[in-house]
Amino acid sequence: MTTFNIARPDKAIEHKLIDKIDNLTKPKGSLGMLEQLALKIGIIQQTLTPSLKNPCNILFAADHGIIEEGVTVSPKEVTWQQLSHFSKGGAGINFLCDQHGFKLVLVDAGVDYDIPAGHGIIDLKVRKSTRNFLYEAAMTADELELCMQRGAGVVADVHARGCNVVSFGEMGSGNTSSSSMWMHLFTDIPLDRCIGAGAGLNGSGISHKYDVLSRALANYKGGDSVQDKMAWFGGYELAMAVGGMLKAAELGMVILVDGFIMTACILAASRLYPEVMDYAIFCHQGDESGHKLMLEHMGVKAVLHLDLRLGEGSGAVCAYPIIQSAVNMINNMDSFQSVNVTKYF
Amino acid sequence: MTTFNIARPDKAIEHKLIDKIDNLTKPKGSLGMLEQLALKIGIIQQTLTPSLKNPCNILFAADHGIIEEGVTVSPKEVTWQQLSHFSKGGAGINFLCDQHGFKLVLVDAGVDYDIPAGHGIIDLKVRKSTRNFLYEAAMTADELELCMQRGAGVVADVHARGCNVVSFGEMGSGNTSSSSMWMHLFTDIPLDRCIGAGAGLNGSGISHKYDVLSRALANYKGGDSVQDKMAWFGGYELAMAVGGMLKAAELGMVILVDGFIMTACILAASRLYPEVMDYAIFCHQGDESGHKLMLEHMGVKAVLHLDLRLGEGSGAVCAYPIIQSAVNMINNMDSFQSVNVTKYF
Repeated sequence: MTTFNIARPDKAIEHKLIDKIDNLTKPKGSLGMLEQLALKIGIIQQTLTPSLKNPCNILFAADHGIIEEGVTVSPKEVTWQQLSHFSKGGAGINFLCDQHGFKLVLVDAGVDYDIPAGHGIIDLKVRKSTRNFLYEAAMTADELELCMQRGAGVVADVHARGCNVVSFGEMGSGNTSSSSMWMHLFTDIPLDRCIGAGAGLNGSGISHKYDVLSRALANYKGGDSVQDKMAWFGGYELAMAVGGMLKAAELGMVILVDGFIMTACILAASRLYPEVMDYAIFCHQGDESGHKLMLEHMGVKAVLHLDLRLGEGSGAVCAYPIIQSAVNMINNMDSFQSVNVTKYF
Repeated sequence: MTTFNIARPDKAIEHKLIDKIDNLTKPKGSLGMLEQLALKIGIIQQTLTPSLKNPCNILFAADHGIIEEGVTVSPKEVTWQQLSHFSKGGAGINFLCDQHGFKLVLVDAGVDYDIPAGHGIIDLKVRKSTRNFLYEAAMTADELELCMQRGAGVVADVHARGCNVVSFGEMGSGNTSSSSMWMHLFTDIPLDRCIGAGAGLNGSGISHKYDVLSRALANYKGGDSVQDKMAWFGGYELAMAVGGMLKAAELGMVILVDGFIMTACILAASRLYPEVMDYAIFCHQGDESGHKLMLEHMGVKAVLHLDLRLGEGSGAVCAYPIIQSAVNMINNMDSFQSVNVTKYF
């Protein structure tokens, strides 16, 4: 099994960072979350002058066997259509990446379609769609392992090209179902509170989704390990994101966590390596039911609350300028010592 | 008295904007607040292809007679020191304006100090500090009028130079006291719920502030008009911001509203001209007590919730990239009609 060597960042620098932030020319604490973000990034990077370089949004796409059970309004072909669309520009994630200087890395993790070569989509397809987890494990243990390795590999590549801040996105019709199952299994929050509208289910659609997922839970024949549960209910794109997040933490990168689905991924990652949380910034709390609960369970607070529910990494990329502001604050603001302003707090 | 000719934007374009937004390649509604912002800006600008040009943050600074009563931890000299600091760079508002391409326009509205010329600070000083509103009107009716005209003039200038989106900031030790009084008088929310920590008062400091403001309210000898109340309890920088906001609305500009103090200003502005609200985007809900209540009273929702309480326009400028994202969304995303993606909602 792939292992990750994730160090906890040395907290010795924390008081120096706090001292620097508290002496910037503003009432103490008056830049709120920007101050908390600067502290976190300073600790991750072990410096009083942090910087964000060559941001990347790695978007994994895959299909899901559970979609056969009618758990989403989004038809299966949307997965490959949108992946192809991302490669040409003009989708939601494209204008956000363009605006904030993100490289968009597109990965076919397991789309049920033969994506033509030559569109810049990295072919890491494990299989054409996972299996239907109502009846059997969505993926084998070997497939899970392969996903983790491949996701880690993509992150190692962008890191080697100078990226030190990475967000993860996904495209996969049906993948909120996998995310809800992971959330339930890794938090013990009741299943009905882990299920939401996904791409746009109405009330009866959500009831049906709950019914399907309840039966899937009752049918579970896997083991007790985190990996067993990830494999049974997971998605190839989700497992690759988990591997990517763990590699990013190993490499000391800042991890930008998108919405509900990516929060479920870092939750799973943290059940394998709790240290991954030290590298994570939660960028957006969406309106998918359960996301707020999951964030509270993890004891974290999101940067943005914009009611986004697009996926693709959109919430993470959208939050980037705020995170950049935190870095600019600690680097570019004067201290009371350096200018003629009475310290006022 | 200066009058403003503020038109309500024609809502005939609304359904066309909604139709365009709903046909972008995403589940309907899945870009949440970005969709609402794009709709609002499209209506203000009366176009399906809105754009934001030459953003400015106009920062008015002034001193307050009420500071003699010990209502803030921020000493009076901080007003001129910080205004001078803004002109040299290195303060909170500077790194945010630099990051997002804002021109920072600095105005001495009534600072109790002879600011040396040559620092790019526009001298529109009405008087060195308002009077102490515990005993008398902070400003005369003529001074209020002058402030409104001068604030309007600054906005007319930036508009003439191609700016169509403007935020307002302030610097003025003691100005949350004026803001709390305006909030109380223009919403009827009980005074104690309109008062907070300002730059950093503790519990007993807040109690003292409440005591002072309660007595000031009891001593009020002005008339019933909005202008009477604005003049008695106002600040020169706040009155200039009100004039600036009204002029911006008259000119069809997008108004970015910062935190508690600027929300009190647009509240006052809306009591004179309710139409100003059609041009306003509320950028940040801070942790100053009462801000949430005031926003709820006005029936509006802020873009960001970052616990900022710096003032200077910082919350408005910090939110700008999100607002730019909304504009990029409506201009740069493909529609379902134009690409091969099944409409999925």
